[in-house]
Amino acid sequence: MRLDRFVSLMKERGFDGALISPGTNLYYLTGLHIHEAGERPTVLVVSSDGNYRLLAPSLYENVVRNFPATFWRDGENPYEKLAWILAEFKLSSGKLLVEDTMRADWLINIFRVGNRGFEFYPLSSVIRELRMRKDEKEIDYMKHAAKVVDRVFEELLSWDLLGMRESELALKIELAVRELSDGISFEPIVASGENAANPHHAPGNRHLRKGDLVILDYGAKWKGYCSDITRTIALGKPNERLVEIYETVKEAQEKAYRTVREGVKAKDVDAAARGVISAAGYGKYFTHRTGHGLGLDVHEEPYIGPDSEVILENGMTFTIEPGIYVPGLGGVRIEDDVAVIDGRGKRLTRAERELITL
Amino acid sequence: MRLDRFVSLMKERGFDGALISPGTNLYYLTGLHIHEAGERPTVLVVSSDGNYRLLAPSLYENVVRNFPATFWRDGENPYEKLAWILAEFKLSSGKLLVEDTMRADWLINIFRVGNRGFEFYPLSSVIRELRMRKDEKEIDYMKHAAKVVDRVFEELLSWDLLGMRESELALKIELAVRELSDGISFEPIVASGENAANPHHAPGNRHLRKGDLVILDYGAKWKGYCSDITRTIALGKPNERLVEIYETVKEAQEKAYRTVREGVKAKDVDAAARGVISAAGYGKYFTHRTGHGLGLDVHEEPYIGPDSEVILENGMTFTIEPGIYVPGLGGVRIEDDVAVIDGRGKRLTRAERELITL
Repeated sequence: MRLDRFVSLMKERGFDGALISPGTNLYYLTGLHIHEAGERPTVLVVSSDGNYRLLAPSLYENVVRNFPATFWRDGENPYEKLAWILAEFKLSSGKLLVEDTMRADWLINIFRVGNRGFEFYPLSSVIRELRMRKDEKEIDYMKHAAKVVDRVFEELLSWDLLGMRESELALKIELAVRELSDGISFEPIVASGENAANPHHAPGNRHLRKGDLVILDYGAKWKGYCSDITRTIALGKPNERLVEIYETVKEAQEKAYRTVREGVKAKDVDAAARGVISAAGYGKYFTHRTGHGLGLDVHEEPYIGPDSEVILENGMTFTIEPGIYVPGLGGVRIEDDVAVIDGRGKRLTRAERELITL
Repeated sequence: MRLDRFVSLMKERGFDGALISPGTNLYYLTGLHIHEAGERPTVLVVSSDGNYRLLAPSLYENVVRNFPATFWRDGENPYEKLAWILAEFKLSSGKLLVEDTMRADWLINIFRVGNRGFEFYPLSSVIRELRMRKDEKEIDYMKHAAKVVDRVFEELLSWDLLGMRESELALKIELAVRELSDGISFEPIVASGENAANPHHAPGNRHLRKGDLVILDYGAKWKGYCSDITRTIALGKPNERLVEIYETVKEAQEKAYRTVREGVKAKDVDAAARGVISAAGYGKYFTHRTGHGLGLDVHEEPYIGPDSEVILENGMTFTIEPGIYVPGLGGVRIEDDVAVIDGRGKRLTRAERELITL
């Protein structure tokens, strides 16, 4: 059971306990679906003795079944009830891991409860060791999420894209993804023409025009697991410099992909992509890291950047997504989801990577 | 300027400074649109001497203009730069307000920077005094957001609802809202038949049937400000008990609305609604508070519940949304957005409140 493995690891690392608010870590450890706790304190307390209990608003009495829980009602003080749990687990002081995304006001109140006797550390520093290594079932879910975005890519090639606004296309992609999956893993990015020079462009009112390269970056969720794909397509014949840029990015992406294997450092994968792009003279236009881990979160460990010391292992899953962005001209990014399986990289997304001209 | 008023209030309350991460408070105070900071530390530091400076990832250099800012790049330690700002502002220890929704990992790191010499308090305890009192422009934006949901309600009455899945209707409502506004203020709720007995029901695969009461709860955003409406409609003639419940909720909502005026306590508004429902014998089926403040956030001060001691003033805006939920049978909720203007309550949402039978 994942919670047992987490307790062992936490103990081994010298922590006394953990405070885990709703999010993907809580789901990963317990399978509990508590997505929108909002401002009502909801915390799983885990001790390194192996005790655990969820503090939750009474609203969740129907959702939390067969799981040790203490409920509080509107009007009651949840932190008082949390203090009881901490006392029962002998956690009234000590070194505690805290969910990274917990709301600050909860943490401030918990700190008071503990008479300032706690030392807090981010949970991610420990739990990443577990989450980074996916089991077969997790990879199956990710394969499915990847298939969905591949299918949507095929579908969108048949749409009448010329003249469509970026925001309109983003919405159509979102609906197509939702139709085939449990939802989108993030708001789709559609960046056309000179807008494609901004890797963080929010889809706007610009109409897609002849000669544009268009970056499409979107993802699906399946059973909680994410996919994340980017393809860049051409509407009519693009200018030669953009074609050269496209071919450079494609080569960089392929080179990085072929670098993936068990025992290689994540930064070597980054270096492979960066090397191709620098050699072509576009080094300063590749302004982000080569990729990020992917799983229950759309950004997680292992990150694939110039400083990433993580050694790749079987079961690790991440994106490879080099890009070149030239202000005033446009941009290209190509992104696949990759898993390390049987010692080698394996693409989960398989949509066409050759430049498609519509 | 709002930031000046905030500094005065903070000083008056005895705080030395504030640490404000992206969200509606940052937007309220500065007008800066930084929505998706993700895991990269982004913090506005404000001192009670009136100094302020934003720490932000270099990603935002194009968004943050004409505003005092210190940028950090991937690879640099943002907390080191934050420490410089704190030292410059003489804030290396002291009583600091912290944005309630700041990520716990940022707060943990900031605490280390300060050598544990800080005392942290939730920002909301102070800034609520400002945000709770809307100016004319803010109320104008809210009126517009309210008009959008009224129009969508009229529109949806013409749709072919019978046989539609809850999730399908929720999506159609979302798209209709998006068409007329800057976006939805939360995921629409569609709860039909016995599902309507759960006030937090997530729209699912149930098909709308003849005889159903259907709760529709959705909202729009306009210039950052939210609306939030609930109507309950009937598909074909509902049974008599549900009609009785509907009329009870409608009366409770009207009574609460007429209670709103300058100088009255928020809890008196709650009591008015609760009184009607209890007198009809449904007291134990009204399981939530009567309403919540509304503005840049869809839930904010003033809350309208049995313990709400806030005294209503001109410029306050909130929902009035009593409901009755009978397990196994169904439920009814009617919600309007209300502003206190010229001493009296004024409905911002004005869609039909009589029971509509389609």
